[in-house]
Amino acid sequence: MKSWVESANSADTQFPLNNLPYGVFTTGDEDPRCGVAIGDMILDVAYLEEEGVIALDEDGDPMLDLPFWNEVMEAGRETWDALRARLIDLLAEDGDAVLRDDAAMRARALVPLADAEMHMPFVVSEYTDFYAGKQHAQNMGAILRGSPDLPANWLHIPIGYNGRASSVVVSGTDIHRPLGQSKAPDAEVPSFGPCKRLDIELEMGAIVGTSSEMGQPITVDQADDMIFGYVLLNDWSARDIQGWEYQPLGPFQGKAFGTTISPWIVTSAALAPFRTETPARDKELLPYLTESKPGLYDIALEVTMQPEGADKATTVAQTNYSRMYYSAAQQLCHHAVGGVPMNGGDLLGSGTISGPSKSEYGSLMELSWAGREPFTLDTGETRTFIEDGDTLTLKGAAKGDGYQIGFGDCEGKILPAITNFPAK
Amino acid sequence: MKSWVESANSADTQFPLNNLPYGVFTTGDEDPRCGVAIGDMILDVAYLEEEGVIALDEDGDPMLDLPFWNEVMEAGRETWDALRARLIDLLAEDGDAVLRDDAAMRARALVPLADAEMHMPFVVSEYTDFYAGKQHAQNMGAILRGSPDLPANWLHIPIGYNGRASSVVVSGTDIHRPLGQSKAPDAEVPSFGPCKRLDIELEMGAIVGTSSEMGQPITVDQADDMIFGYVLLNDWSARDIQGWEYQPLGPFQGKAFGTTISPWIVTSAALAPFRTETPARDKELLPYLTESKPGLYDIALEVTMQPEGADKATTVAQTNYSRMYYSAAQQLCHHAVGGVPMNGGDLLGSGTISGPSKSEYGSLMELSWAGREPFTLDTGETRTFIEDGDTLTLKGAAKGDGYQIGFGDCEGKILPAITNFPAK
Repeated sequence: MKSWVESANSADTQFPLNNLPYGVFTTGDEDPRCGVAIGDMILDVAYLEEEGVIALDEDGDPMLDLPFWNEVMEAGRETWDALRARLIDLLAEDGDAVLRDDAAMRARALVPLADAEMHMPFVVSEYTDFYAGKQHAQNMGAILRGSPDLPANWLHIPIGYNGRASSVVVSGTDIHRPLGQSKAPDAEVPSFGPCKRLDIELEMGAIVGTSSEMGQPITVDQADDMIFGYVLLNDWSARDIQGWEYQPLGPFQGKAFGTTISPWIVTSAALAPFRTETPARDKELLPYLTESKPGLYDIALEVTMQPEGADKATTVAQTNYSRMYYSAAQQLCHHAVGGVPMNGGDLLGSGTISGPSKSEYGSLMELSWAGREPFTLDTGETRTFIEDGDTLTLKGAAKGDGYQIGFGDCEGKILPAITNFPAK
Repeated sequence: MKSWVESANSADTQFPLNNLPYGVFTTGDEDPRCGVAIGDMILDVAYLEEEGVIALDEDGDPMLDLPFWNEVMEAGRETWDALRARLIDLLAEDGDAVLRDDAAMRARALVPLADAEMHMPFVVSEYTDFYAGKQHAQNMGAILRGSPDLPANWLHIPIGYNGRASSVVVSGTDIHRPLGQSKAPDAEVPSFGPCKRLDIELEMGAIVGTSSEMGQPITVDQADDMIFGYVLLNDWSARDIQGWEYQPLGPFQGKAFGTTISPWIVTSAALAPFRTETPARDKELLPYLTESKPGLYDIALEVTMQPEGADKATTVAQTNYSRMYYSAAQQLCHHAVGGVPMNGGDLLGSGTISGPSKSEYGSLMELSWAGREPFTLDTGETRTFIEDGDTLTLKGAAKGDGYQIGFGDCEGKILPAITNFPAK
């Protein structure tokens, strides 16, 4: 599909007309508002709504002049489809000319991406993280328990745990190294201090758009229909804290201090051509988890690492979202089936995505095999875990014929721990 | 302290002038609004704010004509203290006469508790559940692992996990038995269906009032100062679902379907005279968890169970909040110390409260020793876990000299599972 926004037609752009991802941006001191990426520009849809060029709400209440996409998400799939259709019509080479042929409106409505600051694209209602990558689960078993055998329930349940929503931040937000308790294997008692084994987890985040009711189970198809879109997600992890705390009730402070997402919500609609089957089942799933259509997506993923002062980043892993064993729809169905209400703005982390070869491992824990095998960056430095000043970046794109659906970088720099406890 | 509201001076009332707990109520079709319990009445503080009798916000914006107490909570301790002082002045026998001596205003401002419907008293930002009762942890170890030995980290860390906020409901809300996966010990594969081992957990809930900053550790004293108040909390638990899912990442669907809280937030200020020390430490705590003042409260607790159609409830357990090993302030400090921002409206479950004797066990799992020892209700029926139609109620009161600080009932009735998956 061709756009009159020339930069959207380049094979290199992350944001062609087929993508149209949703973000929240500012260019100065004004309030954050909704925008749509197209080529190297942001379409200021809050402004276009104000001008009546985009009309979503029957009563004329603004749904886009807001610092989040939750209103649109909660409005449901008809609104999602109508907005996408309208945006394509406005931006296509041969579509509605109202914006294309109005130089003044164009100048006001299109803002260079390079000039914008991106904010959280939605208000996270609750955050749940899953553990649905088989290679990752096997690697962690081998590292932590000496055996790659999966837990007994793993092939039956999309295992998940509730995470902390208040520390989900947008790409570009610095993260302080967390403090916490850990215990060295040979120590008699635990100690308290900055994390010594700071890690990433390469994940996709699925964003729930519409709600389910308390007590009411849903099907996988319904769950799939509730998903508004996807982001890249870095589940920062403090391995030493996590290792000491996680028995018997699971990860808590080892995961609480930060989760970074990419700034653009890539919609399920934009990703539809890239749907791909979950892999063959090692064991038959219970009927409630059966999918009627391919639930994963073919999205190429990459992790880079750049030490403070280095002039370029090193690619440390490359894999694909299609490596996962469970889809986001299966995860959401399992999550909701017991009766908990799911809400617009709920964020579901896929679990760490690792492929079968070492170059596809989605965490430093796996890449350095728990620190036993340091790896070398292009700068010549070696790493096992993250050092202060390192910047970690996730990248992702679904690759079509002559175009790609990109997510924008999911990036975070690690700052030293804050160790002072201020007086009351 | 004596009030001119006569029913508040009875030794039997849960809501004397010393208490003044905060709830949200309606008496008809009007919007839910903030109220304060006094004797057998609710003081309509939204109305008194409108009349200018209570003034909290400098700009005159309403903080009480809202369906939640979050605005007051986030305003901070000065506002909390000012409101409590004003309420005592308005309701004390010898205080400000503006309400006491105005019959029309009194008639409008005081609503019989019996006529009111109670709603959630605050918007739950996020919900975290802890595991801080030593007797409970030992009992669960003995039941599930054959040994009462505590996990290695238990005496060092207030162990917690993130729960699901969207299914926290107010007392009186029916709960559907959840569906889920479980696997019988002798079964080869798991099955899916209604929970067969439905349970309660007797807990207190601490409500965070003011926020902490991302990346910034806090002390136990600061944490204590951030706590606005307490409620009774029933952490409904599906033991069979939980048993199959919880390794390796902790409780998830076994706890997600419902959490019930009592309707009145009893403030930290009202409970201050009942502060009591955490028990002697079995192992020295790391310095960051040290308390400078008693962190628990002497609150008598009770669990009752009433089958459908029975004319009275049976008391199945009686214990005290002071049985806990960690205080809410220690839990909140541990939660925040790694840098996750804590927010007004965060709810922290204490963990199941069980005392040393069987009559003090705070879950049916312990009372029936995992179903092996059925117990008998006053109706003559026996129980191991909850049956459809059973109503479970938690009660709690801090008992002073001639008065008590009550919480109101924390009650829920179990309805059959909804097993239909509706068409899309």
